[in-house]
Formats: sequence, C-alpha cells, structure tokens
Amino acid sequence: MSAPLRVGVAGLGTVGAATARLLEGNRDLIAARAGRPIELVAVCARSKTKDRGVDLSNVAWHDDPVALAQSNTIDVFVELIGGDAGPAYDSVRAALSSGRPVVTANKAMLACHGTALARLSDERSAPLLFEAAVAGGIPIIKALREAASANQVRRVFGILNGTSNYILTRMEQERMSFADALSEAQELGYAEADPTFDIEGHDAAHKLAILAAIAFGTEVNFDAIYLEGISSITESDLAAAQELGYRIKLLGVATRTESGIEQRVTPAMMPLTSAMAEIHGVLNAVAIDGDFVGEVMLVGPGAGGNATASAVVADLIDVARGQSLPTFGIASVELRPHVRSQLRAHAGGYYVRLAVYDRPGAFAAIASRMAEEEISLESIVQKGPKAVGGVAPAARPVVLITHETTEACIRRALAAIEQDGHIAEPPFLIRIEKA
Amino acid sequence: MSAPLRVGVAGLGTVGAATARLLEGNRDLIAARAGRPIELVAVCARSKTKDRGVDLSNVAWHDDPVALAQSNTIDVFVELIGGDAGPAYDSVRAALSSGRPVVTANKAMLACHGTALARLSDERSAPLLFEAAVAGGIPIIKALREAASANQVRRVFGILNGTSNYILTRMEQERMSFADALSEAQELGYAEADPTFDIEGHDAAHKLAILAAIAFGTEVNFDAIYLEGISSITESDLAAAQELGYRIKLLGVATRTESGIEQRVTPAMMPLTSAMAEIHGVLNAVAIDGDFVGEVMLVGPGAGGNATASAVVADLIDVARGQSLPTFGIASVELRPHVRSQLRAHAGGYYVRLAVYDRPGAFAAIASRMAEEEISLESIVQKGPKAVGGVAPAARPVVLITHETTEACIRRALAAIEQDGHIAEPPFLIRIEKA
Repeated sequence: MSAPLRVGVAGLGTVGAATARLLEGNRDLIAARAGRPIELVAVCARSKTKDRGVDLSNVAWHDDPVALAQSNTIDVFVELIGGDAGPAYDSVRAALSSGRPVVTANKAMLACHGTALARLSDERSAPLLFEAAVAGGIPIIKALREAASANQVRRVFGILNGTSNYILTRMEQERMSFADALSEAQELGYAEADPTFDIEGHDAAHKLAILAAIAFGTEVNFDAIYLEGISSITESDLAAAQELGYRIKLLGVATRTESGIEQRVTPAMMPLTSAMAEIHGVLNAVAIDGDFVGEVMLVGPGAGGNATASAVVADLIDVARGQSLPTFGIASVELRPHVRSQLRAHAGGYYVRLAVYDRPGAFAAIASRMAEEEISLESIVQKGPKAVGGVAPAARPVVLITHETTEACIRRALAAIEQDGHIAEPPFLIRIEKA
Repeated sequence: MSAPLRVGVAGLGTVGAATARLLEGNRDLIAARAGRPIELVAVCARSKTKDRGVDLSNVAWHDDPVALAQSNTIDVFVELIGGDAGPAYDSVRAALSSGRPVVTANKAMLACHGTALARLSDERSAPLLFEAAVAGGIPIIKALREAASANQVRRVFGILNGTSNYILTRMEQERMSFADALSEAQELGYAEADPTFDIEGHDAAHKLAILAAIAFGTEVNFDAIYLEGISSITESDLAAAQELGYRIKLLGVATRTESGIEQRVTPAMMPLTSAMAEIHGVLNAVAIDGDFVGEVMLVGPGAGGNATASAVVADLIDVARGQSLPTFGIASVELRPHVRSQLRAHAGGYYVRLAVYDRPGAFAAIASRMAEEEISLESIVQKGPKAVGGVAPAARPVVLITHETTEACIRRALAAIEQDGHIAEPPFLIRIEKA
C-alpha cells in the first residue's frame, strides 16, 4: 500500500467534525477503497478545546488557514470555513496556487468565484473537488460531471433547499400557514433565526449556478439567476394545486434554450404523478435530463454533518487514487461565456391566483385579457364566498391554470387585468414545470 | 489535446449501435469531457449490412471478438455480446490479459465470474468498468463504488427489473391479472416471449450480486441469492396491500447482517409513503443505506439502448482520463469470502394471504398458531364471501400483517396452520421491507 494521503482541514464546525470522525471511524475501509491510508494531520479552527467527538490530540493545529493551505505537511487541503470570500477563498487560492488539491463544501465561493478557481486549478494542475457543496450526501456532482458526461444536458433541476421543502411539506400536509411552518422549522433547527437565505432561494441558487456550469459547459453565473422565494405561498395555493393535480415545490431549474441558459429558483408546480413531487420534508432531489440517458433523478439528504462528510471523504478518496478532472468537467479554457436567456421567452403553463371583485363583467374582462394574449385556460377554480386579503369586502380567490404560453404573454395579460381594476391584490403566478 | 482513445466494440445490437451513434453524435462534447477524442475504430458483429443509424464504413470489421480484444489497433475493448460465458467471457479475458481496459454491460458474466475477472483486472492493471451492467442509465456503480466509498454500507436495495415493475404497476393501476399485464408488456416489447428471466427475478439477481460485492467488499456470489418471482402475485394482493398502506414491488435487497450477507430478490411490501413505492412502470430505482450518508436513492431508465449507451460512454470517458479503480472498489485480494446469512434469521414484518375455510374455530386456530411463535398481528383483513381458488366451496381470503418476527417463526406458524387443515391453499407470504 502506498504512502498515506495527508489531509489538512480548515473549519471544524458540524461538517468538519463529522469529517474527522468519519476518517477515524471508517479508517480501514477508507484505506481499502482509497488504496492507501487517509490521515488527518492538521486542522485550523477557532476552539482547540471544544468536544468534537474525536481525538485530535495528534493533529497539528494552525491559526491561519492560508498557512495551513500552503503547508508542506499536507497533500490535500479541505476547506470547510464557508463564506464566498475572506479566509475560505484566500486559503483555497493559496492551496491551488501551491499545486495542492482542494476539497471544499463551499457553494457560495464556487457560485461567486467558480470560473476563476477552475482556471487556477487548471493552471496549477491541482484538482478542485466539491461534491459536498451541492445537495450534501447526494452525489450529483459525480453524476453530472462523470456519469452523464457523454450527454448533451437539456435541463438540470431539483429541490435544492431542505428548509423550504420542509416548510412547503408541512404547509400542505398540516394546512399550516407559512409563518407557522417556518416557526416549527426554526424550533426543529431546520431553519435559521434569519431564514432569508433559505426561503428566498439564495442557497438553492448557489447550488444551481454550479450545476448549470457543469451541465452546459459554461462559466458560472450566479447573478444571472432569476429568484422568487416561497414566502408568498399560501396554504390555499397548496390545496388548490393539489386539487388540480400538482404539488408546489421550490425548484432550481437550469435549462438550455435557443436564446441561452435559463436559470431560475422559484416555486414551481410539479405534477403529482412525478417522483419529484413525492420528495417530502428536508430531503433534496436533483434530476438530470440528457439527450441519451433521458431523465435520472437522485434523492437524499441535502444537508447534515454526517451526510456532507461522506461527500467530503469520497472526494478525498478520489484524490488519494489520483483521479482528477477539470473543475466543471471540461478544461476551463473551453468553458463558454454564460449567455442568459430572457425570462420573458420562458415557455410553459402557469398557475395564476387572482382576488377578483365579485361584480358583473369582472370574469369576462379577465377572460378576454387572456384571450388577447392567446392564452388558453386548462382549468378555472373559483372558491366560495370567503373574502381574501381583507382588502375588499367582496373579492374572491380565483385560480387559473393556463396551457403553454410565454412569460411575456402572461405578464402582459396580468398587467392588463390589474389595470382594469377587477382584482383586489396584485396577481400571483407560479410556473408549471414539465415532469 | 492528447491522442485519441481507440475503441473496439464487440456486439452491435441495440446497445452497441446506440454506443456508436452516441460516440458520433456527441463527438465534440465527449472529447471535451474526456480531454481527448474517443474514436470507434473497430467492431465485431454478425451483420455488416444492417442499418444501425450510423456510418461504420471507416471502421475495421472483425469476425472474432477474441482477436478484436487482443488487437493492438484498439486501446479499450467494449464487450456488448452478452451471455455469462462463451465469446463474451473469452474476449473480456483476452482483453484484460493483454492489459487492455474493458467496458462491459454484461451483468450475467459479472455475476457468475466477477471475482475471477476482478483478479485478472488487478493482475494486469487493466481496469474493468461496467456501469451499464446494472440499471442501465442509473449511475449506481459510480454512486456505490465512488460516492458512497467512505461508508459502511448497511443495505443496498431497489427495483432492478423494469419488466416486473411494469407488470406490477399495471396490475395495480388497472386491476389487471398477472397474465393480462404480462401479455400487454409483451405486446409493448417490455417483456420477452419467454419472460422467465425477468419475472422470476434472475435478471434482478445478476445485478444484485454485483451491487452486493461492491457494497460489502465481498466476492460475488450469485448462487447465494434467494429468489421468488412475481407470478404468484394477484391483483387482490395489490389491492389489499394498498389498503394496508403498502405497494408490492419486486425488490432486490442485499443486507449486512450479524450472520452474513442476506441477498434476496422477492416481491416486497414498501410503505406507500416511501419514494421507492412511487417508482412506476419500467423505471428502476436503487437505494444505498450507508452509516454516514444515510439513504440515497437513484431513479431512472434501467434499460434501453440510448440510456445504456450513455453509461458505456461515461465509462469510456473515465478510461480516456486514466481513471482506474479496482473492479469492486477494493483490491481483489482484499475481497472477503461471501458469507451467506440464513434466510430463516431474516427479521421483519410479513404480509400473509390465507384461504381460510369458513367454519367455527378456524380463525382461533390460526391466531393461536401465530401466538405460539410469538408473532403479533398488526392488522387482519377478511374479505367478503367470495370463494378463492375454486378449490373449496367456502374458503375466504384473509390477509394478515404481522409485526416484526423472523422467517423461521413465520414459516413454522404457517406450516402448523397448513397442517391444521383450516386453509384451502398453501399460505402465501410477502416480506415487508423497511423504508
């Protein structure tokens, strides 16, 4: 058996500590799979005294992650500090610059600086591995970068944020409000005190930007992602969706279109008959649609110390075996510029919720505005006499499902409907995702 | 860019022809992902004139797959002939013996001769890749051998045969008989004229034997698999299962137990709330349960020329990049002998279908036989007065769901019940699989 692979880990939070426990607990099995022992030899963390459930007394402690990243005592640098800039980015660049392979779980850094890091990795022939950065224990990077590598990918999409999925699941199953489901998620530790990052889609967007770069061979472009969160979804939307044969999920979707790459993180309607609709609670799921393989879906834990550590150590085993691939699957010089498609060109069906004043002609006016844009309706659900929003005394919720149209058409139709003054609240729409 | 990887393919059936089309159709993308061109330079097939949808006029034709496997004109040999012995096995051994990497889709060969081939691969440092052999387009080999590589795997299980899953799906959804659903599957080309191989579980067992070797680091042991097919399942079983909160699937399950490896391919009851229960039609799904990652499930097309070709070419891209791993994830000398657990030690709940004579005391006798073995019942469903099986004038179907017991206990209880003479047909049982 060859010499051990010497590992330095910066950041001993939940994932870092679990990584240390995994390297220790499954030591023999990992050595057999890697063809050589994998040894944690150095760490960098704030507290030296915190109990992390593993003996770290024989490990060298560093105060400076950059110094650790450049140290000749390690063969591979594991970055688990987090944050798109600062010590995380500095230390990863330092490690790659010194020709050292890097394993990271840092989605924000890759979403913001992925292209630059890919170039540095290529220049220094230092592989950059990041299975843990997207969807925790789900091997979606390997699936996309290696298993689907012969395919023209048409679309990659999925449930990339467990917090939001938990909230939507509870809202539907228990008929809870968004606020109550969020509180419950916070009590259970599934949501942060400030949940913005999860519920407004930023976390999912970081992951989507990385997946899109691999899927389409383009530079990473986080800023091009169109974002809508889940805070405007009501329990009535979830109930209406179910009645119409759909379930609402916060989806990250990256699609190759004629005019460029469409990247969005938005609530979306999935047909109840699709497997994606059956992903409940904090689980994540990602589907790849390729021209030869068709659709492949991976489901599993998208977060958690142990699951994420499993991905970190899988990458270390790849490094130990000398496996190395370009960061995003093709040489960084071959990554094409990211051409953003226009959202107004998005084609698909829509769920539209309107609070319609209960007066003669209102419905006819709405229907004719839709007709003007050549939007045909698949179904219309008008619910009882209950007033909505408390704004107007006699506005009733009306839900429409359209056949395929474009974002430009539906936006124009809804603007005209709002202009006509027949609705008590701004219109609310959710895109229907093809299964 | 480096020199092209020269590929020789033996067998140009559905998968072979799709592989040739894929290598041609996505040529540039494959070269970018592989870091070098991948060229089909030689083939071996019966007919030189058949239209395979791709121009093969510049390719060398061989009559003998062994000669092709040994030819210095190729860098990698792709075996798509099929069959566990004969030309497939001979040519794969010839290629490995000459130090040439092999890519194969041949599950029967690996299930029957996997250990010997792994040794040969190690001796000659010639990688043996077989993503296409298990579940077609689903990258389960990569997921198990690489992504889950840091984990002690506790169980690997799944829906490994699309034909059987299609039949069970149709029986449940359309209340069709097994015979009618099979006929339909045959008409649609999902089932062979002789469907034994699929419906009796042999095909799934080949795949399971391969998965178990990787999951547990043991020698392949196809003969140790316990097999039950789906031909005894009735539409009433499917309806009763659903009423009780389950769906019947033909599952391949390999579990690490205290007494050894339990491998079985049998109909199993999956909770309706599990994602595995929602895999319909010809789709396959495989779940890995690891000590750190938890449960990860992969879903996708388990067969079909294009999906399988996608897996073949992914393996070729790995070969082109010089990635090489031991066949079953660890060096063949480290593979442990396969210790088979005793099925009678299997622990779990059971679905039991009995045709009980409608006479006083019958039910009490059955219940007390169960009690003698300390089997407690979760539910009992007794259906109307309709006679079953036509054997006895007044036997009624009774379905029992037991709490956890062992195979030995339930078998003894059922033998005693049969002995007592209160049932009109041999008892029928289906194991309940933990989600």
